[in-house]
Amino acid sequence: MNKLKIINDPIYGLIRIPFPILYDLIQHPYFQRLRRIKQMGLSHLVYPGAVHSRFHHALGAMHLCWSALQSLRTKSIDISDQEAEACLIAILLHDIGHGPFSHALERKFLPVSHEEISLAFMEALNMEMTGRLDLAISMFIGEYERGFFHQLISSQLDMDRLDYLNRDSFYSGVVEGKIGYDRIITMLSVVKDELVVEEKAVFSVEKYLSSRHFMYWQVYLHRTSLAAEVILLLFVEEILAKADNALYSEPLRYFAGLSAKYAAEDHVSSEMLAQYARLDDIDIIHSLKVERESDDKMVSYLAGSLLDRQLFEVIFKNSSFSSDFVMERRQNIVSQGHFSESEAQKLVRIGLESKTFYNAKSSEIKILCKNGEVKNLSSFIDLPRQKDLNLHYFCAPKLEL
Amino acid sequence: MNKLKIINDPIYGLIRIPFPILYDLIQHPYFQRLRRIKQMGLSHLVYPGAVHSRFHHALGAMHLCWSALQSLRTKSIDISDQEAEACLIAILLHDIGHGPFSHALERKFLPVSHEEISLAFMEALNMEMTGRLDLAISMFIGEYERGFFHQLISSQLDMDRLDYLNRDSFYSGVVEGKIGYDRIITMLSVVKDELVVEEKAVFSVEKYLSSRHFMYWQVYLHRTSLAAEVILLLFVEEILAKADNALYSEPLRYFAGLSAKYAAEDHVSSEMLAQYARLDDIDIIHSLKVERESDDKMVSYLAGSLLDRQLFEVIFKNSSFSSDFVMERRQNIVSQGHFSESEAQKLVRIGLESKTFYNAKSSEIKILCKNGEVKNLSSFIDLPRQKDLNLHYFCAPKLEL
Amino acid sequence: MNKLKIINDPIYGLIRIPFPILYDLIQHPYFQRLRRIKQMGLSHLVYPGAVHSRFHHALGAMHLCWSALQSLRTKSIDISDQEAEACLIAILLHDIGHGPFSHALERKFLPVSHEEISLAFMEALNMEMTGRLDLAISMFIGEYERGFFHQLISSQLDMDRLDYLNRDSFYSGVVEGKIGYDRIITMLSVVKDELVVEEKAVFSVEKYLSSRHFMYWQVYLHRTSLAAEVILLLFVEEILAKADNALYSEPLRYFAGLSAKYAAEDHVSSEMLAQYARLDDIDIIHSLKVERESDDKMVSYLAGSLLDRQLFEVIFKNSSFSSDFVMERRQNIVSQGHFSESEAQKLVRIGLESKTFYNAKSSEIKILCKNGEVKNLSSFIDLPRQKDLNLHYFCAPKLEL
Amino acid sequence: MNKLKIINDPIYGLIRIPFPILYDLIQHPYFQRLRRIKQMGLSHLVYPGAVHSRFHHALGAMHLCWSALQSLRTKSIDISDQEAEACLIAILLHDIGHGPFSHALERKFLPVSHEEISLAFMEALNMEMTGRLDLAISMFIGEYERGFFHQLISSQLDMDRLDYLNRDSFYSGVVEGKIGYDRIITMLSVVKDELVVEEKAVFSVEKYLSSRHFMYWQVYLHRTSLAAEVILLLFVEEILAKADNALYSEPLRYFAGLSAKYAAEDHVSSEMLAQYARLDDIDIIHSLKVERESDDKMVSYLAGSLLDRQLFEVIFKNSSFSSDFVMERRQNIVSQGHFSESEAQKLVRIGLESKTFYNAKSSEIKILCKNGEVKNLSSFIDLPRQKDLNLHYFCAPKLEL
Repeated sequence: MNKLKIINDPIYGLIRIPFPILYDLIQHPYFQRLRRIKQMGLSHLVYPGAVHSRFHHALGAMHLCWSALQSLRTKSIDISDQEAEACLIAILLHDIGHGPFSHALERKFLPVSHEEISLAFMEALNMEMTGRLDLAISMFIGEYERGFFHQLISSQLDMDRLDYLNRDSFYSGVVEGKIGYDRIITMLSVVKDELVVEEKAVFSVEKYLSSRHFMYWQVYLHRTSLAAEVILLLFVEEILAKADNALYSEPLRYFAGLSAKYAAEDHVSSEMLAQYARLDDIDIIHSLKVERESDDKMVSYLAGSLLDRQLFEVIFKNSSFSSDFVMERRQNIVSQGHFSESEAQKLVRIGLESKTFYNAKSSEIKILCKNGEVKNLSSFIDLPRQKDLNLHYFCAPKLEL
Repeated sequence: MNKLKIINDPIYGLIRIPFPILYDLIQHPYFQRLRRIKQMGLSHLVYPGAVHSRFHHALGAMHLCWSALQSLRTKSIDISDQEAEACLIAILLHDIGHGPFSHALERKFLPVSHEEISLAFMEALNMEMTGRLDLAISMFIGEYERGFFHQLISSQLDMDRLDYLNRDSFYSGVVEGKIGYDRIITMLSVVKDELVVEEKAVFSVEKYLSSRHFMYWQVYLHRTSLAAEVILLLFVEEILAKADNALYSEPLRYFAGLSAKYAAEDHVSSEMLAQYARLDDIDIIHSLKVERESDDKMVSYLAGSLLDRQLFEVIFKNSSFSSDFVMERRQNIVSQGHFSESEAQKLVRIGLESKTFYNAKSSEIKILCKNGEVKNLSSFIDLPRQKDLNLHYFCAPKLEL
Repeated sequence: MNKLKIINDPIYGLIRIPFPILYDLIQHPYFQRLRRIKQMGLSHLVYPGAVHSRFHHALGAMHLCWSALQSLRTKSIDISDQEAEACLIAILLHDIGHGPFSHALERKFLPVSHEEISLAFMEALNMEMTGRLDLAISMFIGEYERGFFHQLISSQLDMDRLDYLNRDSFYSGVVEGKIGYDRIITMLSVVKDELVVEEKAVFSVEKYLSSRHFMYWQVYLHRTSLAAEVILLLFVEEILAKADNALYSEPLRYFAGLSAKYAAEDHVSSEMLAQYARLDDIDIIHSLKVERESDDKMVSYLAGSLLDRQLFEVIFKNSSFSSDFVMERRQNIVSQGHFSESEAQKLVRIGLESKTFYNAKSSEIKILCKNGEVKNLSSFIDLPRQKDLNLHYFCAPKLEL
Repeated sequence: MNKLKIINDPIYGLIRIPFPILYDLIQHPYFQRLRRIKQMGLSHLVYPGAVHSRFHHALGAMHLCWSALQSLRTKSIDISDQEAEACLIAILLHDIGHGPFSHALERKFLPVSHEEISLAFMEALNMEMTGRLDLAISMFIGEYERGFFHQLISSQLDMDRLDYLNRDSFYSGVVEGKIGYDRIITMLSVVKDELVVEEKAVFSVEKYLSSRHFMYWQVYLHRTSLAAEVILLLFVEEILAKADNALYSEPLRYFAGLSAKYAAEDHVSSEMLAQYARLDDIDIIHSLKVERESDDKMVSYLAGSLLDRQLFEVIFKNSSFSSDFVMERRQNIVSQGHFSESEAQKLVRIGLESKTFYNAKSSEIKILCKNGEVKNLSSFIDLPRQKDLNLHYFCAPKLEL
């Protein structure tokens, strides 16, 4: 009754919470945990403003989804309160399965995607709430017959993407990522239970794709962020491998070696979920701080690198790096006398970043023409800039170590 | 040479780093540590966007200070490069002495103000840099003869305040806090080495004071933030008292009981500083997570309160609370059977928040009249809304515990 | 059916037009005419961005009013569609009676306030639309029994003021005028058909008053704007007096000497209204351009002053100017040989700007306390900065003419 | 001395005027006239916020140019004060030759481009100022040997474009047009007196091109704006043809039939320039208002169309319209009985809008690679979306006339 119903947001002004169950979910420890997970992982090492949380993003995505539902209703699309509530629940919880540092460490603690863990959380919450999330879950997994609800939650033009582009560009201060979310949402419609965009918003949709493309190149795949992520990954692999340190948090110790255990069970058990729910950025940063003083030279070196922002060098190329190139650097590292050969093998990394910016093969964004026809977006605009990305990288300690 | 010289900022666009030594200081672990200290402590529990760091604020204040110095130079005020560099160093480092959660835990680890610790850090850095911070330190402590440098760093209209009002209102999404910093900075001048504001900016200065006043009432002293701070303080007092938990971080264990030790030495020793430099928000949040599972019921209750945002009730009054009122609540708490009398004594708190918004008695903001005279701000505007704040609060667990 | 329903707005993003009749009214020539009337008169001579029109302000006020109505509905305040439509009509048309340069020339063409002319327009439109504006008119003039509709349209906290403060500060680039309109609107409620604001928005309301106060001092009463307005007034008085110039527009010639004619009839006849509807900024600026080449030296001087921004000097004082002071300047003007004594009499002006910022005597802003009581705003906050303004001004050609 | 040196701008905050001669030029009637020319012609009929003036744009472009020069200086590019002043003069005046409604009526009064008229104005001002604009003119026409000054003023990445994209997207509220001007300007450099952009700004430059592309499709070539422009053009052709109306302004009458006169002289005479300097949006809007009451049915119809925003229908196609299609509509118009055949011929128009978005054949944007090499932008990015535009349009009165 005296429940918080309005939340300040620097982007949208005020976010309203239209259904009481949403408030209860927000107050749940599973959801509050998202306050301790940075939306953009380590990007703040490049863009110091980018320290916003998954918590805030989830609220923002819910807000946009509510705008979209209200706008659809003004177009005589029939949406019951029960459906609206379920849709907002699903989008509010869509990322609840993210773990420490979001994408950077995905599948490192449990060998499944964050969506699968989100689903496990939703099912646990549904138990607690005696089935009140049934419809939301059905929408989330795409089983509900009116497909546009799922498309609002997860598709090539979902409210998740609109919010994260908005929010990430806002907090990082990269204005070029700004999108016309308001125009796009206003132009959404539904034909045969499928989400469509009115033709006159085609340019705004194109601009949204181009902003997303830009954000990948300029921000998400920034050389320095990538360096930090590689270091973090190396570090976490090391500590999950040893995991004997009594100073690590309990859930962190639990997940050491769990991947093997998981393989046997092949599903997220309630014990796993309970431990996972205790895990967030803090466990990792704490272990970085503990290990900075470690006797293990490589681990302490990695921890210091991240904490003091003394990051690795990164080189990008369109083709793969020769093994000679990699070998040479490893030799150099070894010859500097700080690290052994096996350590150098770990420290000098190559890899490939791949990304399909727009999938024109299936589940395309649909455009509602003035004459009532529904067409694929790709029949309206060229999508050459959206071609798949395949970027090879080389990442290694700087030589003036 | 290949040094980072430009940093994205959502508020000012781009922040430039005009002198190489500033870059070196920013890269120093002492300064990088500020990335792990939230500028607004626990305010993000009310305003979820308010998760920005001291690191970012320090850069912002430096940026405004650089603007001010450039503007003063266009008015034929002689400022050497050496002075400019020193002034920027001082403002960059002015908050480096802040510890976990900034003001919320001030004096809890070391019984001195954050400014004193900032000074200790500056002196340590000055040693490392063989005296290159001499002038900056002289400006910081107000000894340099040209007083306006100190006033830019610390006064009733300093660049610190301009940035934190800007930044805190931006990130919290409380637009009413917005100030005309650009106009104020442009209207700064110097008369007899003292900072003055040209008369035509009087309204902007008044508006700046009123925004600051507003931010205190609406944000900094928000009921819910205060509740969270009281809980945090209680929690930290408890753990510093026991401090026997091997799971705490090493610096946290170091500071348990240090206040006594400090009293003996009466200065910040280099050992203390080294330990303090390892302390940030993470140590505290980690201990919250550890203690949530604690057997100590009160400590575990406090930890859960903060982590899951199940906060206390707060009542504000202009006069003090009667001891009967306090007693009654303590009795209620005890009678619920969860806590002992001594625990209830700790949990039910009263206190007083005091604040002088504008000191019209000394060090007033000076106005440069059109006729060349310099007057006090208080001779231009009424300052009744700036009268001192004395707010009594009562803070206790909600009864429906 | 294919009607424009969405309008881009740099402040609110998109403005939706929720009822078809609003669209028809917007398309009406009476309303389109507002495109040719600058919202802020001559302020753009100081703030070059402040060139927005009454047209845009009227849409913005309608938008805020629609937000307020929607917010009130979520609080179970019963508002029928008919009432909502009427309220939006009334606020859309509240300023339709403004003439050239808005307030600067108020009562110069017809000796009545712009509200009275707005009402005449509404009545004419109501005729055309066969009574569909009956309820809107009843709300506009305050006769409708549910008073809060009138208060949304016209009161000390109406949607008109919220929009113009927002809009004027946005376009002029004076950020200190920014207000938390979204928060205030969200906190509106209705008790016994009277508009109230929930207690927790008291600071936002105080901040809104202080922003309004600031905008008057910094923008609306800016010395240079006032100079321009005085010149414009002088010019218009002169041309309405001669009015024999065949190059003037027809409606301008019509209004020459109309004040006398009006006195006889004592109401706005349909002929007057029809001529008034043809009058906008263009007629005046055109006559300025025509008269710049005039043989009448004073008129040509005034026209050139405005067109080329060679404005008069203005002095402000809290007390009245002595007649000696005025006389001396007149003598100086005459002695320069450009103007006769009678011209100097006109050119050297004194006057008084008066403004009640907040009327604490009647129709106060009402605050809804947490306990359900309704109190006056003035019982919550000191209003000293809102004391009445009485500013004497002296305005004359600069001596280095 | 008491000269205005700072101008508020909602986009950049404050615009400073760094050299006194700039202030004198801004105060000149030639420049003040730009206050009466809308930057975006008739776009405000679609985007009501887009009412900003050429005056404001010119100041904005000067501001960006000053930022660019200051940034270049920090990179040890030698720029004398004399060069800086000249460059700012040139960009301040680059658009001073625009006439009523900017591009919409270009070449209608004088059969030359606005740049040629800008040059004529600069030469006239140079006469008045005894040669102080010599260097600025040399930069403007591209004769000065250090080519980067000209490139800042006019090239595919000049400060003009950066400002108009910024400003037009800001005022129209079309956020997708936002560009990272600050980043681009910071990354500018000069190699062999040629303007280059550092490689790491390639994405920002790409985004700038894509924003420009977007603004053309969404705003500048908006169907409704085009309709309005076609009507305006028709109207002006008609009135320049008759031009016998004593109610037209004097300069308007002067330019009736001037194209012929000009052909004989083949240059902009000082008389022509003096008359042109008296011409702005007001003359045209005034004549619209005069002609709305005209006996000439077509002219009065055109005037009413624009003033009351009852615009024509526009159809866009990639190929040309068949003459049958055009004929049929003309027949329909005639058969409605309002217009004669010759009038219908004028009213039903077809045409072609062409635009080269990026010229990859000459004068490309140059990129400075990390290794010091300078390459064309087109060797970095695909430019398919920048392919030339060739859009056929059909524009005619709506049939439900």
